[in-house]
Amino acid sequence: MPDSHQEFTLTPVGHVSSTLTDRASAPKQGTEGAPEAWLIFEPVVVPALDGLRPGDRVFVLTWLHLSPRDVLRVHPRDDQSTPLRGVFATRSPDRPNPIGLHPVEILEVAGRRVRVRGLEALDNTPVLDVKPILPGEPGA
Amino acid sequence: MPDSHQEFTLTPVGHVSSTLTDRASAPKQGTEGAPEAWLIFEPVVVPALDGLRPGDRVFVLTWLHLSPRDVLRVHPRDDQSTPLRGVFATRSPDRPNPIGLHPVEILEVAGRRVRVRGLEALDNTPVLDVKPILPGEPGA
Repeated sequence: MPDSHQEFTLTPVGHVSSTLTDRASAPKQGTEGAPEAWLIFEPVVVPALDGLRPGDRVFVLTWLHLSPRDVLRVHPRDDQSTPLRGVFATRSPDRPNPIGLHPVEILEVAGRRVRVRGLEALDNTPVLDVKPILPGEPGA
Repeated sequence: MPDSHQEFTLTPVGHVSSTLTDRASAPKQGTEGAPEAWLIFEPVVVPALDGLRPGDRVFVLTWLHLSPRDVLRVHPRDDQSTPLRGVFATRSPDRPNPIGLHPVEILEVAGRRVRVRGLEALDNTPVLDVKPILPGEPGA
């Protein structure tokens, strides 16, 4: 069994530039009216973008920097009339490791800037990773 | 623009118990013959599992602890005849923040142990998060 007290360090590879600035008014999912947004990558990781093309569907992983990490159960979708549920059974941003997972479509790749459709993350949210959605896997 | 030198700290919420012990022989995707595996959660996060049921499809997020983080371009699927490609356009485990994203099916929930189908992560891989795959989103 591994050491349960280990820690790992994340370094953002970029950040979100979006007109969404307020958690209360942001859509809860990208399919619920998220505007177009830009991913602005650090210059040092630009080679990692090689091969991304408009039309590609990818997962963007973010660090939900405004989320409390000590919440283990929530009312799904902030609806107080819904019974409490474990955060691992919800997509609440409040969770021990607040990593956001966002399926988006790439619209444009311009140097270290990538324009996407369907991203509900707030302006300035740190970006951790981008992964293509594979044919044949859930998400294709 | 946010501070590009910020860092974030991840704390594992559990680990993988699997018969897969060797990166070279492990399947590259969970659909490519991954065995059943157990997720063993830390006792403190057990409330976060409330509501997970057999048959649920979830994403498991892991920390790919054996992966180098300074690789920005790879030959997809370790095939040297394929041109180099940016890691953000591949699912290579080698990437700046080596977070693994694994769609799996829950088979059994037993206290702090959850048995899953379709997980290609190696034995002892740290688990960071679990998220349900939502109806209507890619992955449903």
